[in-house]
This record gives sequence, C-alpha cells and structure tokens, in this order.
Amino acid sequence: MSSIKMFEKPLGMRDTFPITYEKTEEIRQIGREFLRARGFEFIQTPSLEYFDTVGKASAIYDASLFKLVDSQGNTLVLRPDMTTPIARVATSKLLKEKIPLRLSYFANVFRAQQTEGGRPAEFGQMGIEIIGDGTVFADAEVIVTAIHLIQAFGIDSFKITIGHAGVLNCILKDYTESKEQADTLRTLLVERNYVGFEEAVESFNLPKTKSDALLQFISEATNFVTIRDIEKYVRKNDALEYMQQLMELIEIADLSQYVALDFTLSSHMSYYTGMLFEVFAEGSGFALGNGGRYDGLLQHFGNEVGATGFGIRVDRLLEVVPSQGSSVQTIGLIFEEELFAKALETAHSYREEGKRVTLQSRKGLVDEEAFTKHFDNIVYVSQEDAAK
Amino acid sequence: MSSIKMFEKPLGMRDTFPITYEKTEEIRQIGREFLRARGFEFIQTPSLEYFDTVGKASAIYDASLFKLVDSQGNTLVLRPDMTTPIARVATSKLLKEKIPLRLSYFANVFRAQQTEGGRPAEFGQMGIEIIGDGTVFADAEVIVTAIHLIQAFGIDSFKITIGHAGVLNCILKDYTESKEQADTLRTLLVERNYVGFEEAVESFNLPKTKSDALLQFISEATNFVTIRDIEKYVRKNDALEYMQQLMELIEIADLSQYVALDFTLSSHMSYYTGMLFEVFAEGSGFALGNGGRYDGLLQHFGNEVGATGFGIRVDRLLEVVPSQGSSVQTIGLIFEEELFAKALETAHSYREEGKRVTLQSRKGLVDEEAFTKHFDNIVYVSQEDAAK
Repeated sequence: MSSIKMFEKPLGMRDTFPITYEKTEEIRQIGREFLRARGFEFIQTPSLEYFDTVGKASAIYDASLFKLVDSQGNTLVLRPDMTTPIARVATSKLLKEKIPLRLSYFANVFRAQQTEGGRPAEFGQMGIEIIGDGTVFADAEVIVTAIHLIQAFGIDSFKITIGHAGVLNCILKDYTESKEQADTLRTLLVERNYVGFEEAVESFNLPKTKSDALLQFISEATNFVTIRDIEKYVRKNDALEYMQQLMELIEIADLSQYVALDFTLSSHMSYYTGMLFEVFAEGSGFALGNGGRYDGLLQHFGNEVGATGFGIRVDRLLEVVPSQGSSVQTIGLIFEEELFAKALETAHSYREEGKRVTLQSRKGLVDEEAFTKHFDNIVYVSQEDAAK
Repeated sequence: MSSIKMFEKPLGMRDTFPITYEKTEEIRQIGREFLRARGFEFIQTPSLEYFDTVGKASAIYDASLFKLVDSQGNTLVLRPDMTTPIARVATSKLLKEKIPLRLSYFANVFRAQQTEGGRPAEFGQMGIEIIGDGTVFADAEVIVTAIHLIQAFGIDSFKITIGHAGVLNCILKDYTESKEQADTLRTLLVERNYVGFEEAVESFNLPKTKSDALLQFISEATNFVTIRDIEKYVRKNDALEYMQQLMELIEIADLSQYVALDFTLSSHMSYYTGMLFEVFAEGSGFALGNGGRYDGLLQHFGNEVGATGFGIRVDRLLEVVPSQGSSVQTIGLIFEEELFAKALETAHSYREEGKRVTLQSRKGLVDEEAFTKHFDNIVYVSQEDAAK
C-alpha cells in the first residue's frame, strides 16, 4: 500500500481524544437533562439522506455538501444540518401524532471544506425544534430555552442578537428600486460585509433619501436598544408588531439583559421567514449557535404549520464551557501471571468502591514506568500480597 | 421539486424515534460507566476516512463501502468499522503515550446495502480495543469484559463461541492439497455454509484420510466441550497451547459456562490472526457482537504490537435488552396568553421537583384534546389560578 496518506484524515476531519470526548459527553448530558425536563424529545436521523429531499431543501451551499451516488444511481448527501431531516420526519410521521412537536437532537453534521483552514468538516450540533406552533410563544420559548441552556452549561457572558427577516425585507424593498438590488444587499448582510453594503448602496444611484436611509440604517441597526428605534425606517407592519410582542415576553421572562436587537441579521437560508437570532459567547469569535422561525421549510415538505428552533455548535461550546474535570480515582492494577484470580478479585473490590481500575498483566507491559504514570495509584498483585 | 422521494430515506437508512433513542441512551450510559470503570477511555474518529488508509485496511467487502470523492479528487469512505480507524489513531499518536492502550467507542458505522432487505446501512457499535499487549491476558480481559458487559445490560441468556484462526489454518492446510483448496473452505466457513463445505471437500478428490478428517471435523467442531477434543485433528502447536491458556483463564474468572469452542469460526477479515469469537444472545438470530486478536492490522499501519478487542452491535442489543422505561412524571402545562409569567414560574417549580414540563400556550394548540393525552398530567395556568 502506498503510504503517503497512511495516518492522514480527509480535509477538516478530526479525531476526538479522551479528554475532549469526556467534556463533550458532559455537555451532552447537561443538555439532555435540561431539554428533557422541558418536554423535548430526542430523535436521531440517518447520516445519509437523498439529495432530492433533504439535500436540496437544506439550503446549505451546494459546495459544502458531501455527495455520493448509491448503487441505484441516486445522489445522497451527508446531512449538512439537522433542521431539514427533522422537518422531513415531522411532516412524514410525527406531526400526525402530536402537535406541536418538541424535538431535540445531538448529532454530527457535515460541511465539506475546500481548504485546510482549520474549519471542521464534521461537527456536533445540539438543538431543538418546535413544530406546529405558529405563535410568538413558541419563538419566546425557543429564545428562553436557548438562554437557560447556555446558562446551564456554566456560561455567564453571552449575548443573543435577534432580527426579523420580514422587517429587513421590508426595509430593503422600500429603499431600493429593484428586487436585484434588495437581493444584493441581503447577500452582503449574510456575509456581514458592511463595507460592501455601503459601496453597493452608493453604486445603485438611488434617490438620496433612499441611499441616506440605507446608510443610516446600516450604521445604527446593530445598536438598537428598543424596538422603537427601528420604527423610523419601516412602516408599521405585522413583523414589527410580532417583534414587539417577542421582546415583551423576553422581558417578562426577565432575560432582556441577554438580548440585543440586530435588524441586519439575515440568512442565506431562504426558509427563515420570521425572527432569527444568533448566540455569541465571550471568548469565541464565532456564533455559538443560531436559530429562528422557518415556516418556509415545512411548506417545502407540504405542511403549512409553523416551526421554530435553534442549534448550538458543540465544537464551539467546548471552547467556552468551563471544564469540570473528573474526580474519580484511577488505579493501575498490575498482576503477576499466576495471580489472575486474585487480580480479578482485587479489581472488583476497588470498582465496587467507585474507582476506575485498569487490570494489566506485568507480562504484557513493555515499559512499566511509562505505563504507571498514567494513574492516580498503582496496586501490585504479587506473590507476597497473595500470601497474606 | 419533484416529490417522488419527498419523505424517503436512502436504502437501509433509519430514523430513530424517542422511545428507541432513550433505550439506546440507556445502553450507552450503562456501557460507558461499565467500561470506564475498567480503565477504557472513549475516543471518537471522523465518519469519513481516506479509502487508501482506513478503507483498504478495513477488509469490509468493497461493495459494502460508501465511497465518495472529495474536492481534491481523493476517494473517501464512510467508516465501515471502528477497529481500523482506532488502529490508525493508536499507531499515529496514542501508542507513543501509553502502552498498552485501552480504548473504547460508541459510534455509528456504515455498510451499503444493495437491496431493501431490512438490514441497516448505518448502525451503532460499542466496543473496546486493547492495543500493545500481545499476551493471552489481554485476550482473556477482552472476553471477560465482553461477558460482564453483556450481563451489565441485563442479558442472562447468551453464549460466546471462541475459535482460533491459527488452529483452523493448520487444519485446513494439513488436510487439503493446495492453498486454493484451503481458501475455498475458509470462505465457506466465513459464510457458515457447512453444506457447501462438505460438497467442496468431496469435489477436491482428496486422499480418503484427509477428506474423512475434514468431514468429521466439520461435524464435530462446533460441539467441542474442551480444548482436548481438537487435538486429534491438529499437531501440537502454539495456537493450541494459547487456546488452552485462554480457556484456563476463563475458568479462573468463573465464566466457563458462557463459553463454547467453535474451531470453524473464521473471518473474512484477514487481520484476525489469533483467537476470535462471536456473541450470541437468546432472542436474536444474528451475532450480537464479535471480536478477536488482530495483530495483522497494526502491522498494516507499520506497528508490530499486538491488539485485541470486541464490538457489540447496538441495534441487535436493542432487540434483547430488557427495557427499563422512565418513571419521570410528564406534565403538559397549558397557559392563557396573558399568563406567560405565571406559566414560567409554575413550570420552573415543577421542574425543580424533577418533573418534565412542557410549556404550551393554549393559543398555539390546534387540537387540545389530542395534545393532552401525551402527558401523565395536565396543568392549566388560567386566569382563575392566577387570581388565587
């Protein structure tokens, strides 16, 4: 075998070693307990889906999809998100049983990387979806749950920025002169390219009132304190009223201090039709998670019910969650080969005390000194002990 | 979008609904606690690997591999087993830190299906690997751990059949007249095709002493009670002596009643060089798991250390593990829209009592009666309550 790639892994693929594995497991357990106490039920979907169902609907950039062809000639994708498979499951089966549905997941998703830029091509996501509730209460529940979940992980310093696709669309429509212009600006906002946004506005040769309004909007929109601040840009509409209600519910839940408004928030996922939000924690430059209302996706699967949810990236959580560490004592139990029975018995009694015991024959050791330094304690089962 | 496959999943792909998810989670937790108490450390490897490294080495039939090509033109595979990726990780990094290594995993593996025959194309495996210990004690530890783990799951009725690649090879070599004949018979044993084995023996036109020996071997070999029973077929050799020692250690561990010998046991995985075994539980027609010594695989990765381990299929465990069920009380808390604050407070206090509380606005309900029947109790937060 040619060995140039003997130990290599595909671009963006990672091994998870024990310390990170256990920290991930802590996060998983905290999240599971938290979400189940709130009535969310965990489900799992397959890693592979048809491109024609989940792949096309997921709205992850096509270049980020891992595609393959099965023996029947169908194109498959490794799931690039969990929201789309869950929408498939909900509309095909679960919504017939219970409305609204509250589902949660802890699963890996896949995004192909074109260069080795340190971005993972497979990473864990934990999240929830509330499907079949179109009210503002479902959105409030999603945001309240997101905030409390982050707190449950021991993260104190974080912010949730909330916007609304409807409000942004309204502004972009009102102050541009074509759908193309509005789409261009929206794409620049998705990329967080504010300089590009300003340049594009200049290049459109809009009436001065419009271009001034857009430029002022972009300079102010990430610093709005209350919902009133947006009102000078936009006609009274349902989206605005909805946001007003949402912010009131967050106020009632006494969580306003964690929330900021950002009406430039936008998503390339066209199925985000309503409020949308991002979570930023101190210590991580990237969004920890995001969410929003995606009624459009359910329509894609032929169902007219509302849906809202959020997902948190586990790899980014690992960077900001304080580690607990394990206090369980580890014992390396080294035995002489004729004392297997005694060794089993000794190991058993230590394990009964809650200790982690590695049973190791001395005969199987290459470097005893190197081996023993991995344990809190070393216990020898030798002839002397056995004689006691 | 053409909708013929709107809700379909690729061949052999499954959704896991809450009840099965939670039972899987129980299995996962029992297994994790059990294995960590025995000094095994959990690791995770990526779902995708290079075909040239893990794909080729894994020795899963090529037709069962999910293959794709990445943007650099390299062929990738979805991991078809966990033993091979772990051998990669161990030889590239972990074995430099600690020998022997005791690693464990709980992960999905992928095997492409050609027809919708009910076989899963993605399923969970839980297992262990002891790498860097060539002694019989490591093999004994693997078998003892397998037995106790199965018992920890609450399974009482099961059997482990143990064979040895070296013993079988010796017999096949001694009683055939070419490597081709031996390979043909070994392949038939991998497929458990005993009738085919007998037919092949007849067709070889071997000297009568040889063909008689082979036919007698195949009729007796799955019913050997002690290691002595095989001695009439095979010269005294290291493999036989090794098996003698292994059975003695199992006897010392007081687990002989769970173990049977089967020297027809064979694997199409050429890296199984020593003892190998299968686990059968009552109530499942398929092997629950299997394992063995695979020193050959480590050599493939350029490392001359011994390695042994086993893996259990989670989907088959689910069929035979008695379910615990959850005794946690579920509450559907339905509130009128003006009482969000009161609802949050009520939900919080029930959750503090350890109950699972679903917070639902009445406004968001389409069919209140259908919704309420999913909970142990329904609590209404209405104006009357609030007035109290």
